[in-house]
Amino acid sequence: MKTQVVVIGAGPSGLLLSQLLARSGVDVVVLERQRPEYVLGRIRAGVLERGTMEMLRQAGAGERMDREGLPHDGFHVGVDGELHHIDLKGLTGCSVMVYGQTELTRDLMELRQREGGVIHYGAADVQIHDLDGARPSVSFTRHGRRERIECDYVAGCDGFHGVSRRSIPAGVLTEHERVYPFGWLGLLSDTPPVDDELIYSRHPRGFSLCSMRSRSRSRYYLQVPLTEKVEDWSDGRFWDELRGRLPQAHAERLVTGPSLEKSIAPLRSFVVEPMQYGRMILVGDAAHIVPPTGAKGLNLAASDVYVAWKLLARACAGDHDALQRYSPLCLDRIWKAQRFSWWLTSLLHDFPDTPMFDRRVREAELSYLLSSEAGRRSIAENYVGLPFPETD
Amino acid sequence: MKTQVVVIGAGPSGLLLSQLLARSGVDVVVLERQRPEYVLGRIRAGVLERGTMEMLRQAGAGERMDREGLPHDGFHVGVDGELHHIDLKGLTGCSVMVYGQTELTRDLMELRQREGGVIHYGAADVQIHDLDGARPSVSFTRHGRRERIECDYVAGCDGFHGVSRRSIPAGVLTEHERVYPFGWLGLLSDTPPVDDELIYSRHPRGFSLCSMRSRSRSRYYLQVPLTEKVEDWSDGRFWDELRGRLPQAHAERLVTGPSLEKSIAPLRSFVVEPMQYGRMILVGDAAHIVPPTGAKGLNLAASDVYVAWKLLARACAGDHDALQRYSPLCLDRIWKAQRFSWWLTSLLHDFPDTPMFDRRVREAELSYLLSSEAGRRSIAENYVGLPFPETD
Repeated sequence: MKTQVVVIGAGPSGLLLSQLLARSGVDVVVLERQRPEYVLGRIRAGVLERGTMEMLRQAGAGERMDREGLPHDGFHVGVDGELHHIDLKGLTGCSVMVYGQTELTRDLMELRQREGGVIHYGAADVQIHDLDGARPSVSFTRHGRRERIECDYVAGCDGFHGVSRRSIPAGVLTEHERVYPFGWLGLLSDTPPVDDELIYSRHPRGFSLCSMRSRSRSRYYLQVPLTEKVEDWSDGRFWDELRGRLPQAHAERLVTGPSLEKSIAPLRSFVVEPMQYGRMILVGDAAHIVPPTGAKGLNLAASDVYVAWKLLARACAGDHDALQRYSPLCLDRIWKAQRFSWWLTSLLHDFPDTPMFDRRVREAELSYLLSSEAGRRSIAENYVGLPFPETD
Repeated sequence: MKTQVVVIGAGPSGLLLSQLLARSGVDVVVLERQRPEYVLGRIRAGVLERGTMEMLRQAGAGERMDREGLPHDGFHVGVDGELHHIDLKGLTGCSVMVYGQTELTRDLMELRQREGGVIHYGAADVQIHDLDGARPSVSFTRHGRRERIECDYVAGCDGFHGVSRRSIPAGVLTEHERVYPFGWLGLLSDTPPVDDELIYSRHPRGFSLCSMRSRSRSRYYLQVPLTEKVEDWSDGRFWDELRGRLPQAHAERLVTGPSLEKSIAPLRSFVVEPMQYGRMILVGDAAHIVPPTGAKGLNLAASDVYVAWKLLARACAGDHDALQRYSPLCLDRIWKAQRFSWWLTSLLHDFPDTPMFDRRVREAELSYLLSSEAGRRSIAENYVGLPFPETD
């Protein structure tokens, strides 16, 4: 088998990239270790930046998003029980879109299928060969048989635990990491969201986030110590704790119900540099992880996809040096989003063992930012997404 | 002896406060441990916020400042040899004024003298009595004799090492402190400044600041490890190191000359809470210290003086509870200025042992801020000074 680009991973990044490349006339094959149902079972963020929305529309995958997604013109920041509004639309002229990652993945899957895209699900033991040569290949096992695809380029869209990054020889990559001394306990329920907009709350009991997937499905999060076990959190305990961290009026009108899903996720900041090795580029979570505060993960993957699409199309058209620009083009925006995610996490979470000076400084920062138009606008313009890198 | 308010310390805070109180009809006596020449010999910051300028004018001490001071409509931020302009005037509508603290102190001294203000210089062994009663007093030794002044209120304007804060019983105050692993090596010279505006520079070799006192007197600073000794820094070595941290064009046009003064100052963030005990309030450096990045020290003292003036005048007119509002009114603005000073220090200095993740995040923050109008405006509005507290 031969193709121009092998995309490893059929999550939203891999699907979107393959769709855009295919539409640009590039021959592309996608390999995915899991079955489609597994991919769709992942419960993830659902706040799309304007640039991400625009790309989905360009890919032809924006129709249902535009019909069923919930445009959000702002969000709330809760500080010790008091709400402050960040008017995204008024401050930046842009909105964001709440549309679950599961829905978006489904749309892309169906679109790829409709347009005859090649996705090999259940591709096990993927190995990447000869990345530093002119003719790399990717081998894998499917239906018990070993197969191999020769290609010009490889796009690693297989997430933090994927094979792509691990296939790069030791010593090439520099890893930057920060871990946080807490996690997010998330609960999904078929209950109407407590507010039309998202509420990111700082509270002496810890951070909370009131989010949603639709008008009838809510997603709530609580900051918890990493020592907590999800088994110890009955639905009742979760709802009680959430109420305790919300402003009075919201606590009173919170509609509760049985959880559809409940899990604890650790928070991590991670960046690998460079994001390219020979004829392979790393896209999205394969190269970087952000803590979920600020909803940058999927959107950052989308801006990688944008750069990858433009440069791979150019490389496949004969400009082999184009790929060299991928890493520097992506990393500038990635570090800014890392900064924003780290910073919003720091401002809104309770960090045990933080010296009182640092606590006071953080309180002052939040107080200043929320009281200043420039401060609110700097939050807003990061939230709706900084401009995509210019690839021309 | 009796008076309404004893002001301890005849630096700029004590002089300004006593001048404003006297003009409001309050009977005030100032005690100063040193001789006037010593007070004038201190070499300190010289960037005045609009609010500080306004207060000096209200006190009748703005004439020479308005004539000889240098209005600055902006300043530069150097990042690894490249300059970025912060257009204070364009971003906030306000400018700052470069006018040496020594000049300002001299103006206030002369004004107090002209208006018959009582300042006891050389007042040694100051002791403060009965602060928690209705009738406090202050005793001191002058010309070999012990004297005592009874008063209604005491204003501690005697700086970080002064007696005022130390006179408050143990357990009353909470101290917040942060020290920095470097100091500023400053050099004063009668040379024309290298630029019309200030240049705060971040550089791999460390932070530098190009500042000035007038069109013919420059003040330069270099970040140095605290282990450095000023004796090891010849003028030649200082100028060479400064050139190495400046953008090429500035390095080339830097005019050097013999130093008038050279010293190393450690950097410190310090806040004490509350800033009041019984009938005494703490003003300026007696209650808080900021690192000099951002030039907030004197200006923060000025906003304390503003609140102290308004509330002491009210208290002396019979509203004894007015003083209770001093600490909360001041601290909100103080913490915001602490935040700004700490943050600008963090962004522009080299911190040894900083994890690479943190370095990258700081670079990204600076890059974002300087590229964003909202980011530059948030720097500018803090630099020209947040609004004074509302005392009504």
